[in-house]
Amino acid sequence: MAKKQKKQPRPKAMTPRGFRDSFGAEVEARRTMLGKIAEVYHSYGFDPLETSAIETVEALGSFLPDVDRPNEGVFAFRDDDESWLALRYDLTAPLARVAAQHRLDLPSPYRRYAMGPVWRNEKPGPGRFREFWQCDADTVGTSTVAADAEICGMLAAALEHAGIARDQFLVRLNNRKVMNGVLEVAHLLGEDKSAQRGIAMRAVDKLDRLGIDGVRALLGAGRKDESGAFTEGANLGDEQAEIIIDFVQAERADGGATCARLLELVSGSETGREGVEELEEIATLLDAQGYGSDRIKIDPSVVRGLGYYTGPVFEAELTFDVIDEKGQKRQFGSVAGGGRYDDLVMRFTGQRTPATGVSIGVDRLLAALSATGKLDAGAARGPVVILALDRDRMAHYQTLCAELRNAGIRAEVFMGGGTNMGKQLKYADKRAAPLAIIEGGDEAERGVVQIKDLVLGAKLAEKIESNEEWKAQPAQREVARADVLAAVREMLAR
Amino acid sequence: MAKKQKKQPRPKAMTPRGFRDSFGAEVEARRTMLGKIAEVYHSYGFDPLETSAIETVEALGSFLPDVDRPNEGVFAFRDDDESWLALRYDLTAPLARVAAQHRLDLPSPYRRYAMGPVWRNEKPGPGRFREFWQCDADTVGTSTVAADAEICGMLAAALEHAGIARDQFLVRLNNRKVMNGVLEVAHLLGEDKSAQRGIAMRAVDKLDRLGIDGVRALLGAGRKDESGAFTEGANLGDEQAEIIIDFVQAERADGGATCARLLELVSGSETGREGVEELEEIATLLDAQGYGSDRIKIDPSVVRGLGYYTGPVFEAELTFDVIDEKGQKRQFGSVAGGGRYDDLVMRFTGQRTPATGVSIGVDRLLAALSATGKLDAGAARGPVVILALDRDRMAHYQTLCAELRNAGIRAEVFMGGGTNMGKQLKYADKRAAPLAIIEGGDEAERGVVQIKDLVLGAKLAEKIESNEEWKAQPAQREVARADVLAAVREMLAR
Repeated sequence: MAKKQKKQPRPKAMTPRGFRDSFGAEVEARRTMLGKIAEVYHSYGFDPLETSAIETVEALGSFLPDVDRPNEGVFAFRDDDESWLALRYDLTAPLARVAAQHRLDLPSPYRRYAMGPVWRNEKPGPGRFREFWQCDADTVGTSTVAADAEICGMLAAALEHAGIARDQFLVRLNNRKVMNGVLEVAHLLGEDKSAQRGIAMRAVDKLDRLGIDGVRALLGAGRKDESGAFTEGANLGDEQAEIIIDFVQAERADGGATCARLLELVSGSETGREGVEELEEIATLLDAQGYGSDRIKIDPSVVRGLGYYTGPVFEAELTFDVIDEKGQKRQFGSVAGGGRYDDLVMRFTGQRTPATGVSIGVDRLLAALSATGKLDAGAARGPVVILALDRDRMAHYQTLCAELRNAGIRAEVFMGGGTNMGKQLKYADKRAAPLAIIEGGDEAERGVVQIKDLVLGAKLAEKIESNEEWKAQPAQREVARADVLAAVREMLAR
Repeated sequence: MAKKQKKQPRPKAMTPRGFRDSFGAEVEARRTMLGKIAEVYHSYGFDPLETSAIETVEALGSFLPDVDRPNEGVFAFRDDDESWLALRYDLTAPLARVAAQHRLDLPSPYRRYAMGPVWRNEKPGPGRFREFWQCDADTVGTSTVAADAEICGMLAAALEHAGIARDQFLVRLNNRKVMNGVLEVAHLLGEDKSAQRGIAMRAVDKLDRLGIDGVRALLGAGRKDESGAFTEGANLGDEQAEIIIDFVQAERADGGATCARLLELVSGSETGREGVEELEEIATLLDAQGYGSDRIKIDPSVVRGLGYYTGPVFEAELTFDVIDEKGQKRQFGSVAGGGRYDDLVMRFTGQRTPATGVSIGVDRLLAALSATGKLDAGAARGPVVILALDRDRMAHYQTLCAELRNAGIRAEVFMGGGTNMGKQLKYADKRAAPLAIIEGGDEAERGVVQIKDLVLGAKLAEKIESNEEWKAQPAQREVARADVLAAVREMLAR
């Protein structure tokens, strides 16, 4: 309900910077895609959870470095009682809060999925919004890698069910423990090595883009790119660098061989050995569920949020090519990722609560479905539009419209001003109406209606001059009033 | 992604005051209900619209009386550039902004529906939250009452499709213009009468609760309630009061008779006559669509947000009885309402843009479906739980689980700690699992599994002592491993 206005300058009709609206077909495409994903999550025993959009700043795990401007990165505001509230910036922090708050009531393990908007108080840019959707699934309260395997398999099933073909994606799997084992063997653990370690891991993460020589340069003294800009390297010794290089190149023909190679590389590291065993176990479990290495494979070059994850990590990547902004062909790339994180609930309870989960990038996946022509075409189809050429016959138009709706056909009567046929047909076009139904005085007298196929009609329209000629086209049919429903059904089906 | 923590006191795991989380069955029930409503809105030609949760304060139509605490009633905060933003408090204000912002691109009339959370910075209380869902449909850009009629019919169809039976609800329809006509006849128009007018209209609105004598008292000197509290009346003259009383009692056996009576009452008022004609036209149009007065009827006692609406107003009310907090039987009451408002878009454009719409109270309607036992029982059903009694057989359990999922059966393997059967069955109960599948070492050796019907099992459990006796119960079946899928299907169907 809007309040009464005092005399004020007219407000601008604009979304705030970095926000947007979603219309019709776009909303339906997202809803359909999320519905498909939810079906898979549901079949895997995951329950939906919808947390409040607003959390206390403490629960979100942000700080108050400056009372006047807390929480760079989140939208925060003071409540009546002077406490700070903020809009959630992801779906994981609220899950951790829920897992702690309801730990006595929730089943353990707790499998939940969540789909909804999150908000980031960041600088908006092209394709970069301050409100966007996430779609997460997590299992909280179990340390078994069977849970990680389940999430990986479920991710693959969800992508397929959403419309990504089996040969168009790959879930790549690694383990933080294996990486730690490699770092241990390369003598890169310890506080004093954290800068070197960080550079080295970021270098590994760039393998796809820079190739092995680029990574080697970054592990050593550094690298100059084509523009001449220099990136400082990790300055590792040759032997150290070689260990890392061996690690990112450890992939073999199949999972078993890859694991055997990894085991050699982490020789002497207990953590590393444990990590490889976990990868082997995950591969066995996935195999038992029918997920072979054509869909989910061990890939030692996967590096994700090292500070956050504590065990298996994975990434789903789309393998087909798209043309990027620069007109160059490149792989579509990552649409989802996740892994094991065992420390988030502990913030609240003081007790370690193992958890693992995945987050699908909703906008990215929608873009991929759009790029592959997999968006539901039906979503974009408008209603059958019944023209209102004779205002006195509005009740008759409504009866006809009700007949169509009752038969499950999306339909509406034109309700704009005027009785001009051209204007009404233009409206029908704007609505992406498949058919327009025309019943003027002449037709009413003769007990018939005209049904115009607007899709076909648009194709023919340019070539036609006279109205008579136009009526003779197959794009328009005259049918008896009693036969309208049957004719509409038939024309919609063709 | 959570940031690394500095040493801090543990945060409380709590939603902020007035916020809540929705779990599993509750989320699914709401989603199912909104899905049903969306189907009807879609079939009527309405397109979904999802606006940003955040709007500029100017666009929302609020003011800045106090820079430190703007917008009583909304959650507001300053953006980087010092402008004020706020969370939307309803779905109508964003629609007005969209209709103005995109007026050159949108079809006209623009039919849209919207479903989503809104936020009110108000004092929370029992059943009163600061975040809740709304579900609106509006037609913007047409002044024809055919649009009002369409919204009324669509509301009735939506309620039925959501699960409210045809004899359990009634859409009651009135017209602001008729009320204005009556006020004109009663000499209650004009600025100086606004206080009297307000009291009189509120009195009419209380007809259901106070009866005609209560209304009469409030139109006159005032009314003392059972507790002895006195409410000041409108102090109308007898003749004035009689006109209002006649108006609220104007309902007759059918819409035609009611309209005839209303026409007598507003005799001499041009506005009133126009209002009655609109009601007649709406009734004709609804009739043409098959909506008789058993579902939508003219009721002169309907009073809704007088300051806001400019024409037809309506309210959907559920007519079955529920037991209230005080243990008393009363009608369930209103679940939706709406009407014509012609001035909201003008704030932005300066041009009058006629609009009409409806808002369904999502929580109220869900409560009604719950009260009538109409919530989808399937939504509350958990997955089939495969117990993991033998950790070495995890891969086998996963294979079995995949078989069930591939056949469309919701299923999961227990992944908590320990191999204790009692604990795992308790987990299955907590998950509302219909069946538990048990395959221990003994069963594995014999190539069989046990399938336990947990619903039936719970009923029988108290009476059974020994394990042998328990196995003999019909609640548990032993089947060959190859026959599990068929047996599960059969047991789920019964």
